[in-house]
Amino acid sequence: MVIAGPCSVETREQIIRTARDVKAAGATVLRGGAFKPRTSPHSFQGLGEEGLKLLAEARDTTGLPVVTEVLDPHDVEIVCRYADMLQIGARNMQNFALLRWAGQSGHPVLLKRGPGSKVRDLLMAAEYILCEGNPNVVLCERGITTFEDAARYTTDINAVPILKQMSQLPVVLDPSHSTGDWRYVGPIARAGIAAGADGLIVEVHPDPQHARSDGKQSLKPEKFVRLMHEVAAVGRAVGRSSAPLPVEA
Amino acid sequence: MVIAGPCSVETREQIIRTARDVKAAGATVLRGGAFKPRTSPHSFQGLGEEGLKLLAEARDTTGLPVVTEVLDPHDVEIVCRYADMLQIGARNMQNFALLRWAGQSGHPVLLKRGPGSKVRDLLMAAEYILCEGNPNVVLCERGITTFEDAARYTTDINAVPILKQMSQLPVVLDPSHSTGDWRYVGPIARAGIAAGADGLIVEVHPDPQHARSDGKQSLKPEKFVRLMHEVAAVGRAVGRSSAPLPVEA
Amino acid sequence: MVIAGPCSVETREQIIRTARDVKAAGATVLRGGAFKPRTSPHSFQGLGEEGLKLLAEARDTTGLPVVTEVLDPHDVEIVCRYADMLQIGARNMQNFALLRWAGQSGHPVLLKRGPGSKVRDLLMAAEYILCEGNPNVVLCERGITTFEDAARYTTDINAVPILKQMSQLPVVLDPSHSTGDWRYVGPIARAGIAAGADGLIVEVHPDPQHARSDGKQSLKPEKFVRLMHEVAAVGRAVGRSSAPLPVEA
Amino acid sequence: MVIAGPCSVETREQIIRTARDVKAAGATVLRGGAFKPRTSPHSFQGLGEEGLKLLAEARDTTGLPVVTEVLDPHDVEIVCRYADMLQIGARNMQNFALLRWAGQSGHPVLLKRGPGSKVRDLLMAAEYILCEGNPNVVLCERGITTFEDAARYTTDINAVPILKQMSQLPVVLDPSHSTGDWRYVGPIARAGIAAGADGLIVEVHPDPQHARSDGKQSLKPEKFVRLMHEVAAVGRAVGRSSAPLPVEA
Repeated sequence: MVIAGPCSVETREQIIRTARDVKAAGATVLRGGAFKPRTSPHSFQGLGEEGLKLLAEARDTTGLPVVTEVLDPHDVEIVCRYADMLQIGARNMQNFALLRWAGQSGHPVLLKRGPGSKVRDLLMAAEYILCEGNPNVVLCERGITTFEDAARYTTDINAVPILKQMSQLPVVLDPSHSTGDWRYVGPIARAGIAAGADGLIVEVHPDPQHARSDGKQSLKPEKFVRLMHEVAAVGRAVGRSSAPLPVEA
Repeated sequence: MVIAGPCSVETREQIIRTARDVKAAGATVLRGGAFKPRTSPHSFQGLGEEGLKLLAEARDTTGLPVVTEVLDPHDVEIVCRYADMLQIGARNMQNFALLRWAGQSGHPVLLKRGPGSKVRDLLMAAEYILCEGNPNVVLCERGITTFEDAARYTTDINAVPILKQMSQLPVVLDPSHSTGDWRYVGPIARAGIAAGADGLIVEVHPDPQHARSDGKQSLKPEKFVRLMHEVAAVGRAVGRSSAPLPVEA
Repeated sequence: MVIAGPCSVETREQIIRTARDVKAAGATVLRGGAFKPRTSPHSFQGLGEEGLKLLAEARDTTGLPVVTEVLDPHDVEIVCRYADMLQIGARNMQNFALLRWAGQSGHPVLLKRGPGSKVRDLLMAAEYILCEGNPNVVLCERGITTFEDAARYTTDINAVPILKQMSQLPVVLDPSHSTGDWRYVGPIARAGIAAGADGLIVEVHPDPQHARSDGKQSLKPEKFVRLMHEVAAVGRAVGRSSAPLPVEA
Repeated sequence: MVIAGPCSVETREQIIRTARDVKAAGATVLRGGAFKPRTSPHSFQGLGEEGLKLLAEARDTTGLPVVTEVLDPHDVEIVCRYADMLQIGARNMQNFALLRWAGQSGHPVLLKRGPGSKVRDLLMAAEYILCEGNPNVVLCERGITTFEDAARYTTDINAVPILKQMSQLPVVLDPSHSTGDWRYVGPIARAGIAAGADGLIVEVHPDPQHARSDGKQSLKPEKFVRLMHEVAAVGRAVGRSSAPLPVEA
């Protein structure tokens, strides 16, 4: 399972083009934010429902299922209407109300680990979704906050084998957020697969320098192609089948 | 401003009795959880609206204004009906949807710092509330996650003077959560006032050993009386006026 | 016990003048570095034995006992010749060879906590000194490394009551290093005493802007006078006797 | 470069047998501790010079060069007499006196990152050795201290590509210490190579349950054989040549 796409849906052309590029490179799911959780209320907050429509169009064009973040319980229904999978972002990992609503939706959920949260707390957060009778939860390691500041976060690579041992749920790694720097995305993506991750989620943007968010950590499509080749080689070396995990709703 | 009361509202007798005790000891606001954010979905989740009613009764009995946590945007309205101040808990500090709804409610908001969040992120989270035209935000330091495990969290005492310098908002310290151990609540409460905090939020329970949550860090009422004396002495030593901050809705 | 003085001994005039100033303000021990542990080998490394001689002269002039850091087991003997107390710096907290040599010297030891070390590890490091038959160990909390970067380190104020409970050894707080910013030294010094610390170690420099190291966190003498008044008021409020702890060799 | 061997040299039979086993599995350097830095002074401290002699005998038997830790500047000379490479342990990463003595020795140095130290501080520590005219420094990532406690440390996998970019020095990963659990050593070793590390250092013990130190994180020889196969496959997938780095004195 390789989820790829831009941080934010910005324009029709941007998302359709990126969807085609990542599909051609072998990605199996398209990501893109319509409701964006930004540290500052003065930053770009996403296109909202307009963004959801563009994502749905990108899916119709490419056949890729779509995952996008939901922030407000009031929006769960509308996001489910357009997307195949809900993302619970890192800042909302312990937003238990949202977890319950997502669980009740019946949609598959991509649950990102909070940067200050322990592995055990991630599993407990997943339990809030599972408890609602929704078994389709994918866990995502996306970096934790530590004293080290040479990268934006510290990729907790130990969490990959630990989660695989403590849980039956699929585990994906997000090397874009966990490093915050496109130069390290390739090595950390390879490390994730080598450590046993079931998949990756990678930010790809046709023009990272002009991205409205997360440009610094986004790969250009041609670099994403190269990453997919490298990751496939590592995947074969560690004996992983290349069949994508099912993520349809 | 000293906010005191039990972690959770458990019974009519428990909350009324605690409200009287903390009022007699000099507390100016009553706290108590009706909607509880628990790491595990299998832990006690609070009494819900029934808890809100008991809090309102405790206010009517003692005259103390009441602060309680809200978890779900759907509940903002009902919580506002019963409580004088909304609490945004640490796990929801970057739940931007909830911050906006709380801002729009017009109610004063007690905003707790996320244990993995920087001071700057706390100020940005407050900005989400202020942006909605709601100026009544109180910032709360309640401990951060670090490698040290001799206490449950690390009280970030530096955050007190830093927040006072970077912002005009009142700052309170929560020594109960920031230590996780009733034995350290007194020393850290004193430290908070000595460092310049505008107030405290302290967990008090008539019978901590049988509390349904956070018993280990709750003070018995008699110990809370002693803490109030100690804190008052430190407050005088650092030249703080003893007039409580206004928190009415 | 208030230990004060410059980060580094720089000139005869600087150390003598500072010694007189801190003595007049009520400090009971003079600090100053002759052998400096610097992150980069290209930074100023201290005056070495020349610095030790100047410290001894400052002691003779003021009557203040002197504490200074030792870095190399080869230097323990010479440092003992000039100083009344050995400092083991934070970077050497688990330099077990140096701890043993310091223990064998018979000199009192000021043991600073490593910024990445747990309270339990600090106590175990002290045990290396105590094991050599040397009971005169003073523990020093000087900040730990965390994700928070608004200050240089995070003052672990919880460590003060925890160390007091787990050990009989005196505990001092170093608000200069634990904040890295002179603006926060006063509030954190007060917090330390309020939390139960037995003393403080504070960097004071006659001209912080031109200090060869740690200028940003050093107090001017007049600000140190004010800090001493504030700290004394807090000390009285928490019932501490003002008699200094004995630190003579 | 794969460095392997027991945490501590315990007996003649143990070190000779382990040396043969790791050599047969493809290791290129033998590790083993004679002077052990232990958190508590009451724990086993190593066999000292007797341990060095046994290491030298293991080298003569197998042809594997030997790396071992030095703790005290007084011991640099004797350790150099028996060993091919000096290890500066994590606790001594900023023991600048020891770094200088190791640099002056002319022996290659394996420099382990302190668990509370930034990547930048590791590079500055290496600079202390390089400054003495000794260019043979190998950097080792061995886990950092964070709030996560599901493993003993957090492997900072980001540090691998970051160090490779910021420095020309070889980088090895120590999955034994960075996880503290033999079950995770394999996945993290593979991740290290996939991320671009130049080598590994792995603890191997013939009977981990009865090891005098670090048994929990040590691999049995047969598990080490399997790890070497897995790591070689990943190495080929990422295009690394299999020629070992030179480590002779």
